[in-house]
Amino acid sequence: MGTPGTDRKKAKPAVSPVIADRNDHFVVRNGVRCAGVHLIVDVHQAHGLDDIDLIETTLRRCVDAAGATLLHIHLHHFQPNGVSGVAVLAESHISIHTWPDIDYAALDLFMCGRATPDVCIPVLRKAFKAKRVEVNEILRGRDT
Amino acid sequence: MGTPGTDRKKAKPAVSPVIADRNDHFVVRNGVRCAGVHLIVDVHQAHGLDDIDLIETTLRRCVDAAGATLLHIHLHHFQPNGVSGVAVLAESHISIHTWPDIDYAALDLFMCGRATPDVCIPVLRKAFKAKRVEVNEILRGRDT
Repeated sequence: MGTPGTDRKKAKPAVSPVIADRNDHFVVRNGVRCAGVHLIVDVHQAHGLDDIDLIETTLRRCVDAAGATLLHIHLHHFQPNGVSGVAVLAESHISIHTWPDIDYAALDLFMCGRATPDVCIPVLRKAFKAKRVEVNEILRGRDT
Repeated sequence: MGTPGTDRKKAKPAVSPVIADRNDHFVVRNGVRCAGVHLIVDVHQAHGLDDIDLIETTLRRCVDAAGATLLHIHLHHFQPNGVSGVAVLAESHISIHTWPDIDYAALDLFMCGRATPDVCIPVLRKAFKAKRVEVNEILRGRDT
């Protein structure tokens, strides 16, 4: 595959996560001001974890549901199975890594600004017919 | 910018994070078997956080230092400042989001297999001349 290239884009100001008035893009979560909400999500006993189309569709649905802005999406299908995917957002990112053999996927959803990552959880649960979804929340940049 | 495209690649088997003998790619960390080590890294009082070349070089150095395999890298430079970057690895991913106005960057480094994310911390500290680096470790997929 050679050396992977670098893909760069200059965003329009309208989709910048860091605008002149940064307060607009900080989050107040349970009374705590922070740079963004980072959800660490473990999906267990799930299905469709080797279906790259389902995974892409699901990532896009999460972006839409959260009210986020998609800047770039990349999915990688491994042999013999497993998918890694990242969605770069104006509000940060979503990542997924799947282990279809054990019906497990590890995701993280990091969103600043007005995007609402929590609403992605039912989207994920439904898409992957997951019997168990664990969510841990980290408030990033609390003490900046 | 229109609808972002999807970039997909089929990996050669050699770079798959999920191979037939999955045990090779699980990690035993402090006696705990898990799918991978996920480091949540906050970089404070740092410099160079709007320098996209420095950030790309640093991500690539982290990949090399960790002994990981880079599959895809994407950086996005925001206006008026700030960079988001993701490196998709055969072993999972690294992400960075910077807030140059407050000298803060939020990263996460998720690596399975034999890659060693810990060694990226001094690389990050040096590259960004960070006065304070916070690292929180999550062992993903412990109970799979």
